[in-house]
Amino acid sequence: MDIPYVIGVDMGGTNTAFGVVDRRGAILYRGSISTRDYTTGEEYIDALGNAINYSIQSNHLKGQIKGIGMGVPNGNMNDGTIEKAANIPWSKNVVTPLAAMLTAKTGLSCKLTNDANAAALGEMIYGAAKGMKDFIVITLGTGVGSGIVSNGQLIVGHDGFAGELGHVTMVRNNGRPCGCGRSGCLETYTSATGVARTAREFLDMNPEMNSLLKEIDYRPITSKDVYEAAQKGDELAIEVFNFTGKILGEAFCDFIAFTSPKAIILFGGLAHSGKFLLDPLKKAMDSHILSVYKGKTEIILSQLNDAEAAILGAGALAWE
Amino acid sequence: MDIPYVIGVDMGGTNTAFGVVDRRGAILYRGSISTRDYTTGEEYIDALGNAINYSIQSNHLKGQIKGIGMGVPNGNMNDGTIEKAANIPWSKNVVTPLAAMLTAKTGLSCKLTNDANAAALGEMIYGAAKGMKDFIVITLGTGVGSGIVSNGQLIVGHDGFAGELGHVTMVRNNGRPCGCGRSGCLETYTSATGVARTAREFLDMNPEMNSLLKEIDYRPITSKDVYEAAQKGDELAIEVFNFTGKILGEAFCDFIAFTSPKAIILFGGLAHSGKFLLDPLKKAMDSHILSVYKGKTEIILSQLNDAEAAILGAGALAWE
Repeated sequence: MDIPYVIGVDMGGTNTAFGVVDRRGAILYRGSISTRDYTTGEEYIDALGNAINYSIQSNHLKGQIKGIGMGVPNGNMNDGTIEKAANIPWSKNVVTPLAAMLTAKTGLSCKLTNDANAAALGEMIYGAAKGMKDFIVITLGTGVGSGIVSNGQLIVGHDGFAGELGHVTMVRNNGRPCGCGRSGCLETYTSATGVARTAREFLDMNPEMNSLLKEIDYRPITSKDVYEAAQKGDELAIEVFNFTGKILGEAFCDFIAFTSPKAIILFGGLAHSGKFLLDPLKKAMDSHILSVYKGKTEIILSQLNDAEAAILGAGALAWE
Repeated sequence: MDIPYVIGVDMGGTNTAFGVVDRRGAILYRGSISTRDYTTGEEYIDALGNAINYSIQSNHLKGQIKGIGMGVPNGNMNDGTIEKAANIPWSKNVVTPLAAMLTAKTGLSCKLTNDANAAALGEMIYGAAKGMKDFIVITLGTGVGSGIVSNGQLIVGHDGFAGELGHVTMVRNNGRPCGCGRSGCLETYTSATGVARTAREFLDMNPEMNSLLKEIDYRPITSKDVYEAAQKGDELAIEVFNFTGKILGEAFCDFIAFTSPKAIILFGGLAHSGKFLLDPLKKAMDSHILSVYKGKTEIILSQLNDAEAAILGAGALAWE
């Protein structure tokens, strides 16, 4: 018999949200727990398992859940572990077999991967990549993440950690320092944080230029400020997006030379910048792409609702 | 019944060699025809089909050939076509369905892909990648090619042309002009041609430096000259390899962030430069790699005989 539901778990640095999801991507029931309120992975899984078991019981879903899929920071899909996730205190220095622990607690099979891979599965099953076998999802948030699908399968690599495209090197000399300890990484330029950084740089470098962004001196500039200024026609803000789009477009040319995807799907906060990001991005791709790939790869904005995508994507793991 | 043989066809710009291959990689019979002596793809396939049919007949192999695999320039594995291969006069401006044409001529199923992908399959079935599911083969010849295997499958992309890693951009400002019409591509630095180019640049830039390579003024310097000079302790030649290895090592760090392969296998002429290339390559990788991948990916030299590898690799397509 066809089992109608899965549970998708989106583990963030602060909160962990989960939902019971059906095959069409409707979320029947939602729950959440804190991620940070625990001192060990055991305590965390105990609380999460209790919350999941309660949701199954109270909704009379026993026997109707196919399995659990989790999107977790530094998730290793091959081993079902979370490995030294810097932003989660109880994970910082250890490898924790979260999937097996949650199975023991709930009696349900459990798979996990990182959030960008979960987003890619979500797009394939419910979103913009429906029916595609070769595509890449790029998440543009605080950092830049990626989920790569080729031949209809997620690429996780020999160690479960493939797809760190936010850390390809875009500037080899005097690149911006990156949180990873190196410099010049894509995410230092094209994440939401990178956009704010570019705005501050451009303001410093162009003291003579007028900009709405100069009025913000009581707090750090954010990528949202840059977007809002660009919408009002602010020249400096538009230049910030031109710079960002160009670097992202050139990076995409290298990505296409790798797996030749039918589409690259943009996901996350910065993807909502619309034409300000897309126009220079596509222009850079057009002028820089290897001729064999010219005009073949679509750039698409995610069609999934940001708030639901993480749960749907994680749940998608359990349909596989 | 298990059919014991395949035919591997290696189509080069000048000659096309083929061989009857068994499951262990022994080549029973070899033949060849010219690639350039024909004015159309039809004439070429007619000649190749005749040669193959003759080899089957004369060796009493009728019914014992599982299929034909071809490695061809600009080969599209999805469609079985050769598309506008610049180095083959009769292909220059057209798309030719070679695989279907050879099937019609021989009665055997036929698949094709480009030579670097064929090399990757050859390594997986007969060579250094035996038993691996995630690896990359980098061919270092006149150009730089690549064959990428993930989840045990060749990555060919939505259009059949994935894996042009020789054309990722390594130098974004004032990079060397590339045959592809762009500049700064990996292959302009790390192909055999790139090594010779670096040697000529270094000689121009360091007129005060002594080098055995200065004695070669009656013909262009080749990568072989650089290797031989390095073996004799020539400082400038060794610096050329240091420069080449560093760029290649930094490129590999980006490749690893993509598919996290268990190994990168070096294939082709320049792979025989041994420690002169490997030492600086590994040093660059060690100092530049994202920490999650540190020390995980092996760099291996191909274990296939260069002369046989192309036929074995192409034949491997027919085992799939």
